[in-house]
Amino acid sequence: MLVSPFEFKKETLRLLDQRKLPVKEVWVTCRSSAEVFRAIRNMTVRGAPAIGVAAGYGLYLGVKNFKGNPGQFFKKLKKEAVFLKSSRPTGVNLRNILDRIVDALQAFKISETEKLKKIVLSEARKAHKEDIALCREIGRHGAKLLGRNDCVLTHCNAGGLATSGFGTALGVIYAAKQQGKKVSVFADETRPLLQGARLTAWELLKNRVPCTLLSDNMAAMVMRSGRIDCVIVGADRIAANGDTANKIGTYNVAILAEKHGIPFYVAAPGTTFDFKIKTGNQIPIEERNAEEVKTVFGKKIAPEAVRVVNPAFDVTPHALITAFITEAGVLRAPFRRSFKKLKRNYAK
Amino acid sequence: MLVSPFEFKKETLRLLDQRKLPVKEVWVTCRSSAEVFRAIRNMTVRGAPAIGVAAGYGLYLGVKNFKGNPGQFFKKLKKEAVFLKSSRPTGVNLRNILDRIVDALQAFKISETEKLKKIVLSEARKAHKEDIALCREIGRHGAKLLGRNDCVLTHCNAGGLATSGFGTALGVIYAAKQQGKKVSVFADETRPLLQGARLTAWELLKNRVPCTLLSDNMAAMVMRSGRIDCVIVGADRIAANGDTANKIGTYNVAILAEKHGIPFYVAAPGTTFDFKIKTGNQIPIEERNAEEVKTVFGKKIAPEAVRVVNPAFDVTPHALITAFITEAGVLRAPFRRSFKKLKRNYAK
Repeated sequence: MLVSPFEFKKETLRLLDQRKLPVKEVWVTCRSSAEVFRAIRNMTVRGAPAIGVAAGYGLYLGVKNFKGNPGQFFKKLKKEAVFLKSSRPTGVNLRNILDRIVDALQAFKISETEKLKKIVLSEARKAHKEDIALCREIGRHGAKLLGRNDCVLTHCNAGGLATSGFGTALGVIYAAKQQGKKVSVFADETRPLLQGARLTAWELLKNRVPCTLLSDNMAAMVMRSGRIDCVIVGADRIAANGDTANKIGTYNVAILAEKHGIPFYVAAPGTTFDFKIKTGNQIPIEERNAEEVKTVFGKKIAPEAVRVVNPAFDVTPHALITAFITEAGVLRAPFRRSFKKLKRNYAK
Repeated sequence: MLVSPFEFKKETLRLLDQRKLPVKEVWVTCRSSAEVFRAIRNMTVRGAPAIGVAAGYGLYLGVKNFKGNPGQFFKKLKKEAVFLKSSRPTGVNLRNILDRIVDALQAFKISETEKLKKIVLSEARKAHKEDIALCREIGRHGAKLLGRNDCVLTHCNAGGLATSGFGTALGVIYAAKQQGKKVSVFADETRPLLQGARLTAWELLKNRVPCTLLSDNMAAMVMRSGRIDCVIVGADRIAANGDTANKIGTYNVAILAEKHGIPFYVAAPGTTFDFKIKTGNQIPIEERNAEEVKTVFGKKIAPEAVRVVNPAFDVTPHALITAFITEAGVLRAPFRRSFKKLKRNYAK
């Protein structure tokens, strides 16, 4: 059940190269924070929770060879954290996990640089373990929402590959399966980078969950046919009012679900919530390279001269979201109130 | 302005191979009805009006070498028509054009097979010329709906390549441009076969219309940003109540347009209307090969074992359609009444 996208061993972070799946299983080795930065930027590792945990290890790799006194060490640590945060602007787990490690370090009154380095690593490992535990809790709460033979539509990949294993949206499916439910999945292929076709389909087949692949634009027709019981997606950042940034196309699916009277759930850990921002309008949306739209696996699919838009994410307004599935339970509207339960558990 | 997808010369139908665009411009030669059937089936030629006209020539190729008396000739003619109609089940121009040629032949009281053959060809040519004229009229009526600087979202390719030239949805754009309007287009890439990325973008650039390509799942976000003034799409079959079968994903776009208060227009000639069927439920939807979804230009994008749905079309309920742009003018709801104007002009 646990498809892990990374492992940290012998002072190196090994990442399953998610750009190569499902055709090849290639592992990439990172020995510096710059290598981790690049792997996040080019999507060797992706998925907001997975990025956060990988960046935690990246922070350790960024300071582990540092020579200097604790004062200089903290300066270096903060610089590395800022650097790693800049790898992808939209997600917030990245920021939350790095901030938490830096804060934890500052709480220790330690005057030995070598000891501080060890604490950075143990905090990164803590974030890693915690992420798995959060997914398990999300799965436990979410599974209650699914009937014995329910069919779930999902977008992009919010699975084991997008987290430290188990997953958020797919974690709900796996938890339901463990309870003996016969849940099946329709997976949007998720252009431009096809995380649904490449990663979700791969991971569901590996875990023996029945999966049907569809092009993103087929979702409305499949919903109308009555085959979808609910939609479950992950999230990259959730504002205080519930507006949710997630992979481009999520907002489309949310509108289609509303039109067909199908519940639309967002499954995400507390690390994905950003209570500092009031609404989704304040979430920066990463615009990625035009080539991602104009080519598929290196094959040109459009005229060279054509203009392209390529936002990596969109924002689904909270009014389209039935509930958030979190480690603190299933949180329903009004979200400002229900989110308090989550705030007690976690975060700022 | 006229990008023609075919030409008929020296007893052969030459087709621009639309599967190869925009990377290569390759022409395919058909000398028999079986070759035309195959070209329609494998989408060398596509677009409901273009298929209809190509099939008209295919009918001629199917009978031109026939030896026998006029009675036997009519039997052969009808058999060829049935064969060609079976190439793609969803569109109706194909059926309408072939039926009309057969009907026209039967109206002539001619007892020489060779003369009958010539009439088949002249009727096919007539359908060809008429299709261009219909597009021009659709363009003329539709252009009135567009403001000076309007931006139109379109899905799939309802352009010159989908007709005998000029196009239906794109014909409206071209007509507006000829009137001096500075119209621009957002083109959905249109998975799985990418007609938007490959054909619409190619043809708009060729005609110097500003075009921005987007993945299908980005449409909602672009609409929300306020950049889209209206949606114009083509059609493959329109039922008597206005329910419209068109390329898969059209129904998605119609729901998104409704949600954002954006007018949604269907541009189509009378040949696309099927007044014999009351609603869209009666339109057969072609299910195509799973490989179209699992591969892109021969590149594998999903695990081999995954199940796939691949409906070539979906049906947009008439309630989501603001108006039909036809050669008989812009027809608004209630459609049963406004369609009468079209019935007077054409069809059964």
